[in-house]
Amino acid sequence: MGLFLSIRCPQAAPMIPPTVVDAAIARALEEDLAGGDLTSEACVEPDRRASAVALAKSWLVVCGGAVFARAFALVDPTVSFESLARDGEVADGKRPIWRVEGRARSLLAAERTALNFVQRMSGTATLARRCVDAVPPSSRTRITDTRKTTPGLRAFERYAVKVGGAHNHRDQLGSAVLIKDNHIVAAGGITVAIERARRAAPHTTRVEVEVASLDGLEEALAAGADIVMLDNFSDEGTRAAVERVRRQSPAPLVEASGGITLERITLLAEMGVDVISVGALTHSAPSADISLELSIDS
Amino acid sequence: MGLFLSIRCPQAAPMIPPTVVDAAIARALEEDLAGGDLTSEACVEPDRRASAVALAKSWLVVCGGAVFARAFALVDPTVSFESLARDGEVADGKRPIWRVEGRARSLLAAERTALNFVQRMSGTATLARRCVDAVPPSSRTRITDTRKTTPGLRAFERYAVKVGGAHNHRDQLGSAVLIKDNHIVAAGGITVAIERARRAAPHTTRVEVEVASLDGLEEALAAGADIVMLDNFSDEGTRAAVERVRRQSPAPLVEASGGITLERITLLAEMGVDVISVGALTHSAPSADISLELSIDS
Amino acid sequence: MGLFLSIRCPQAAPMIPPTVVDAAIARALEEDLAGGDLTSEACVEPDRRASAVALAKSWLVVCGGAVFARAFALVDPTVSFESLARDGEVADGKRPIWRVEGRARSLLAAERTALNFVQRMSGTATLARRCVDAVPPSSRTRITDTRKTTPGLRAFERYAVKVGGAHNHRDQLGSAVLIKDNHIVAAGGITVAIERARRAAPHTTRVEVEVASLDGLEEALAAGADIVMLDNFSDEGTRAAVERVRRQSPAPLVEASGGITLERITLLAEMGVDVISVGALTHSAPSADISLELSIDS
Amino acid sequence: MGLFLSIRCPQAAPMIPPTVVDAAIARALEEDLAGGDLTSEACVEPDRRASAVALAKSWLVVCGGAVFARAFALVDPTVSFESLARDGEVADGKRPIWRVEGRARSLLAAERTALNFVQRMSGTATLARRCVDAVPPSSRTRITDTRKTTPGLRAFERYAVKVGGAHNHRDQLGSAVLIKDNHIVAAGGITVAIERARRAAPHTTRVEVEVASLDGLEEALAAGADIVMLDNFSDEGTRAAVERVRRQSPAPLVEASGGITLERITLLAEMGVDVISVGALTHSAPSADISLELSIDS
Amino acid sequence: MGLFLSIRCPQAAPMIPPTVVDAAIARALEEDLAGGDLTSEACVEPDRRASAVALAKSWLVVCGGAVFARAFALVDPTVSFESLARDGEVADGKRPIWRVEGRARSLLAAERTALNFVQRMSGTATLARRCVDAVPPSSRTRITDTRKTTPGLRAFERYAVKVGGAHNHRDQLGSAVLIKDNHIVAAGGITVAIERARRAAPHTTRVEVEVASLDGLEEALAAGADIVMLDNFSDEGTRAAVERVRRQSPAPLVEASGGITLERITLLAEMGVDVISVGALTHSAPSADISLELSIDS
Amino acid sequence: MGLFLSIRCPQAAPMIPPTVVDAAIARALEEDLAGGDLTSEACVEPDRRASAVALAKSWLVVCGGAVFARAFALVDPTVSFESLARDGEVADGKRPIWRVEGRARSLLAAERTALNFVQRMSGTATLARRCVDAVPPSSRTRITDTRKTTPGLRAFERYAVKVGGAHNHRDQLGSAVLIKDNHIVAAGGITVAIERARRAAPHTTRVEVEVASLDGLEEALAAGADIVMLDNFSDEGTRAAVERVRRQSPAPLVEASGGITLERITLLAEMGVDVISVGALTHSAPSADISLELSIDS
Repeated sequence: MGLFLSIRCPQAAPMIPPTVVDAAIARALEEDLAGGDLTSEACVEPDRRASAVALAKSWLVVCGGAVFARAFALVDPTVSFESLARDGEVADGKRPIWRVEGRARSLLAAERTALNFVQRMSGTATLARRCVDAVPPSSRTRITDTRKTTPGLRAFERYAVKVGGAHNHRDQLGSAVLIKDNHIVAAGGITVAIERARRAAPHTTRVEVEVASLDGLEEALAAGADIVMLDNFSDEGTRAAVERVRRQSPAPLVEASGGITLERITLLAEMGVDVISVGALTHSAPSADISLELSIDS
Repeated sequence: MGLFLSIRCPQAAPMIPPTVVDAAIARALEEDLAGGDLTSEACVEPDRRASAVALAKSWLVVCGGAVFARAFALVDPTVSFESLARDGEVADGKRPIWRVEGRARSLLAAERTALNFVQRMSGTATLARRCVDAVPPSSRTRITDTRKTTPGLRAFERYAVKVGGAHNHRDQLGSAVLIKDNHIVAAGGITVAIERARRAAPHTTRVEVEVASLDGLEEALAAGADIVMLDNFSDEGTRAAVERVRRQSPAPLVEASGGITLERITLLAEMGVDVISVGALTHSAPSADISLELSIDS
Repeated sequence: MGLFLSIRCPQAAPMIPPTVVDAAIARALEEDLAGGDLTSEACVEPDRRASAVALAKSWLVVCGGAVFARAFALVDPTVSFESLARDGEVADGKRPIWRVEGRARSLLAAERTALNFVQRMSGTATLARRCVDAVPPSSRTRITDTRKTTPGLRAFERYAVKVGGAHNHRDQLGSAVLIKDNHIVAAGGITVAIERARRAAPHTTRVEVEVASLDGLEEALAAGADIVMLDNFSDEGTRAAVERVRRQSPAPLVEASGGITLERITLLAEMGVDVISVGALTHSAPSADISLELSIDS
Repeated sequence: MGLFLSIRCPQAAPMIPPTVVDAAIARALEEDLAGGDLTSEACVEPDRRASAVALAKSWLVVCGGAVFARAFALVDPTVSFESLARDGEVADGKRPIWRVEGRARSLLAAERTALNFVQRMSGTATLARRCVDAVPPSSRTRITDTRKTTPGLRAFERYAVKVGGAHNHRDQLGSAVLIKDNHIVAAGGITVAIERARRAAPHTTRVEVEVASLDGLEEALAAGADIVMLDNFSDEGTRAAVERVRRQSPAPLVEASGGITLERITLLAEMGVDVISVGALTHSAPSADISLELSIDS
Repeated sequence: MGLFLSIRCPQAAPMIPPTVVDAAIARALEEDLAGGDLTSEACVEPDRRASAVALAKSWLVVCGGAVFARAFALVDPTVSFESLARDGEVADGKRPIWRVEGRARSLLAAERTALNFVQRMSGTATLARRCVDAVPPSSRTRITDTRKTTPGLRAFERYAVKVGGAHNHRDQLGSAVLIKDNHIVAAGGITVAIERARRAAPHTTRVEVEVASLDGLEEALAAGADIVMLDNFSDEGTRAAVERVRRQSPAPLVEASGGITLERITLLAEMGVDVISVGALTHSAPSADISLELSIDS
Repeated sequence: MGLFLSIRCPQAAPMIPPTVVDAAIARALEEDLAGGDLTSEACVEPDRRASAVALAKSWLVVCGGAVFARAFALVDPTVSFESLARDGEVADGKRPIWRVEGRARSLLAAERTALNFVQRMSGTATLARRCVDAVPPSSRTRITDTRKTTPGLRAFERYAVKVGGAHNHRDQLGSAVLIKDNHIVAAGGITVAIERARRAAPHTTRVEVEVASLDGLEEALAAGADIVMLDNFSDEGTRAAVERVRRQSPAPLVEASGGITLERITLLAEMGVDVISVGALTHSAPSADISLELSIDS
């Protein structure tokens, strides 16, 4: 049965329609299984049954239980699934996370595809959690992802980001306005760019502007930007910018971007930056170490 | 126009049919552009033209030129593309790699999607190259990928592995036999598993067996395995295994897997291991740092 | 060749990626042409050539030229296309809009599919224009669409809305927050609903709340809504609401929705409503009357 | 579970394979829900349950129950569905038509997509019913649709036409022969066009010819057309044509097309026209007014 | 470039939209080339060029030139194609049919997929031609296909049937009425079945009834069937049926089906049967022997 | 419910992921049922129930039960299925193979699509069985398929080959190395071609070389080919080649290809050929004669 991903997650993680989940898994299965599974077909009796447990082999934030379950179900709908840890929980040591049971051939055929999804999703959730934990408890600074996602897996990665406790940035180019340097050059200046965006974009959208200097910041403030993104600002530059913005009324939100490390997250949060966007959450999170241990039923 | 990826690469990298390339890019474009591009539509005149150059911002192995070109072409077929560095070349500093020219809106709309592909592909090619460079020049040890690829992008990642100078392992479960511990348990032993595999699998396929100990190795040798995979062997264990195999005639190939680092690659190669398979090539390679610098035509 | 739709339109209409356009046309061609074209195959010589002109048979806003061209190109890439009127222009009487030329069989086979797209797109653009023209020139009130679009054709219809001079509302459920009565009930009140939305949604998104009464409006103002939507308010109620909102600082935007007619658009605009959302733009616009007149080359 | 649409309809409405239904709904869900549902995710607890009833808010012919059910099922297979009115029944006032029950988030996420389908389907069924009701009870004149359907939704609209009590015309260009003026010009005359069609088309197909004048009608009769379509004939012209055809033996069927109104339907039926084809059934039927009222379970 | 299949064929063969052709080829390429082409990548230099000629190695009717061309174009758009024999021509001995030229790797990678299409298409065209040639020259009996086509390739096979000189039967279940024994049982008799079909089906469709005996034939004639299909009638039975039908006015068409051989085709045609439907044209035609001979450019 | 094909077959037949099975059936249903089923809709009451039995009308090897079941399930998930013969069993006379039960309309609508799959699959399994039976009992010669499969149906046909008792050759161009004459010419000789293949291809793959003469065989042996394919060798040539190979140590496998008949299979097996590859298994197997007999429930 198709599961609704967000149900399993306490945070307000984005729902992924089951049709989108299934389509991505079907593509992955075709990559791995279009020619059958020579080894299992040869070595394992068709009726041999088994169970298998997914184990966290290092500290990680669990993510992707419903996807894991669907990968097996799409290979063999008679495989049963049991969740031993909810998305968003922390696992370490050799803690069992999920359990599947059914025909041994089916478990072996789906194993790699299932793991390829959840190791990436848990990797992103784990890195998101590390970033969020670097924000001091008293701070309200928000960690967000970017559009630097893996082609074809954006919905999965945005879900993982929220499961890790971070936030999503805009979903796509059609959801919100973010004016970058190139747009400013093309439009002929910050003021005209913001005016055009207000005139053309849906009224539900805030207008964010990327600035590269304190001068740029001044222009953006004067033009009434709703959000200013400080692009690759130094720590000093960021501190000055935040102080400048605080004197504005109404004050726009401040987003920091570029060269973000765990140490800088703490520093930037303490400065009062509202949002820190971290591309690495989705483009460079190391795969989480999860393995599947199979027991053939005797 | 659809380009044939492997043409641009001196190594025998796997061809990716243009239909597969285009389908993956179309999916990614739909993720990012299904709702249009609010910012560019608002800020940039429809007829404004621009050119843009992709720059390597750190040391990397260039990979994915044809994919980069197609991402722009699928947004706007009038965008022209020029390759300034071939797949497999090394770039560093701020070296220009590729150049596109056309409507500014089209370049801005396709930018992120194009980069999301090539940053991953170049990241994998770069890590592959680092692993290959760790093999001593005198050694014939081969670095390979695994099936731990990103769902939906296996063809792209296998291509990148070869562009980086490493080799591909089997493409999918239907291409070759690799008997793992679970198969051995299910079959009732190494000998019967190998016999069954020889009987059932295509005659074009070698039979590889994963062993977890020197005892297992003995059984695999006796049963006539074509390839033995040493799973998470220590350095000492590996050395002993290689020596044991060398006394066998005909001697099977030896593959080492698990816990591979750049340092261990050198060591394992010096021991005479034939193949070192590295899951991290495709599951944990950090994204390569490539940016697009756009110049609006005046 | 794939054309980039927005190029032809002076307004900042949403770009539709050519891959999305082609996929929709291919589906439509399969509905009409999967079994071939019995009549043309029988009656028309394979090499007979023809030209055909699309004519506006009543007052309409031209919309969909690039889609029209692609419908013929996907049946036969040798068909040539000429645009005689740009998207957004008004046509009436028997004005020629577009012209195609090529094999007569190809023109006949693609005719109905091409017209089915552009008659709907022009119908929506025409109705949008009528609504926009009902807004007094001095007013800055904005007419928008809703998510009540035809399944599978949202991008085409949002494009047509802008070509007609109106605006787009949020693209989809993942782009912006719009709290409706059901959300308020489920959350336990307006204040808590707005708080949760601010906490969970991307920082790029404004928070819009639908209210059904002046009491609801008071709560929404107190809770700091960015936009208030007056759901099915009477003219008197709307007037009172607008006046109340104007006394708030900062004042949210006011959107009117439900029971909108051309006459009410004028009235609501004069009252100072910021946004009027009109579901009929996409769910009930009558098809524009466009026909294709074919001349067989002698 | 996938439902077989025609089961619920007493008329011989065309079956739509569940795979076709699901594919269309999946596309629509991707348009609306690809980025998740920001509002429901934020405001509604994951486990909160609700029920919702679809209400007819004006006089309409119910159509699309099975599609409505599938839209919720594809978002969340645990949503249950109950039909309170069968396809083809008339509803008015605030009559409940269908009922769904399940997670509140799932109902809210699928609501708009479900309604977008059934409002169009019921709109077409309602207009079809109005046309059929304009045919005098004693008449055997048949109202039919045309190929002027919404791209991607032909099966849904042809189904709705039959649910409303009207008939389908040919499904597509490959199903039957309909020789239009352009075909006649290209073939060099009516006689040769009919001969070619008889020679080339499947023997299961009747040959229909469109005529623009009584002279054309004479030629079509002499050439042995099985059906003559009177294209945009005046009332007088139609009357004369019908009388002429009645004197022929065997007499072909007479179809009237172009400029059809409810009043003219009565008149044409009284004249004895066999078939009246109405493009507006599928290209301009106003959306039926159906709303979803949700009750959050306490 | 996409080619329009029917252009190349003198007969009125069904057009296949290029999007349908490309989709089928893309699926076939994915079956064969998803993992690249190990042999060509290893053995053939990327820039090595070659030409290749498709040769008929036995007597056959050429069919599928445009599909052959597209198979190479979808692997590499720079491959050029030349047609040396038109669809419908006869080739034998070692006559060259088509020629392609381009990168050797591309030709080798596409070869098998291209041949897999055209060997089947030419096989069907060849068998169709043999059947048509068995009809005496003076006879107007028509050979047709059935719906017993290869899943996924119906359009290709119906095209091949016409290229071979035979005719198509109805395209699909939604195109025409064919009442079989099961429908008669379910409806409660031939008369009621025909009445229902006339009432429900499009007016463009003839009503065909399958009969299993001369008694059944009498009922069908009395009920006014447009076509009677004699199901597995003996030669004597067929002769008697044809004579009986000739005495009817207007006389329906007679179709013979079941147990058709080349010899019986001659006999049945001489008896005056109008249509002979042959399932084997599409379900059991042996593959035509076509090979590709490649010359590497020196 | 999706079934896992290989479960029903005692041999180690390749698993076909249910998503692949369903996609192929959905495409076939769209070919036949996109416009509904005019005849059943008209003649058969919606609630009329029936059962139907698939009968083998001649000697055949049963193949495709799970596909048969899915074809009905995808039209109507309430249809129940019962298997009366397992894949791989022999049926003859009028033995019932499978049984379905449900709405009569659903059975009639799915009938042709279901049969089109299983008649082809059983046809291939039957021919495979005939070939395997021609191998003397004492021989270990293996019959294999080739890549000459029907476009879009490779997985189904490879499954059928194994169900018939034969073996699969390499799945696709990316699975194994097979150097043909063209590769040899392009590479500049057998030795260099084999060296390049060993260097570039995955280490899991054997290297097979096609030879056209005994001289070629000598070169292949000297270069260390793992498998030699004798292309269109005469019986004498084959005998000489096998004897030559036997004197080699280690001796490669010998595969015979081209001009294979049942009689030659016996002869070649007696000579000691290891593998006989038979293209006809998948490109020219006649359709097996299976019919569906339907009983309307009274």
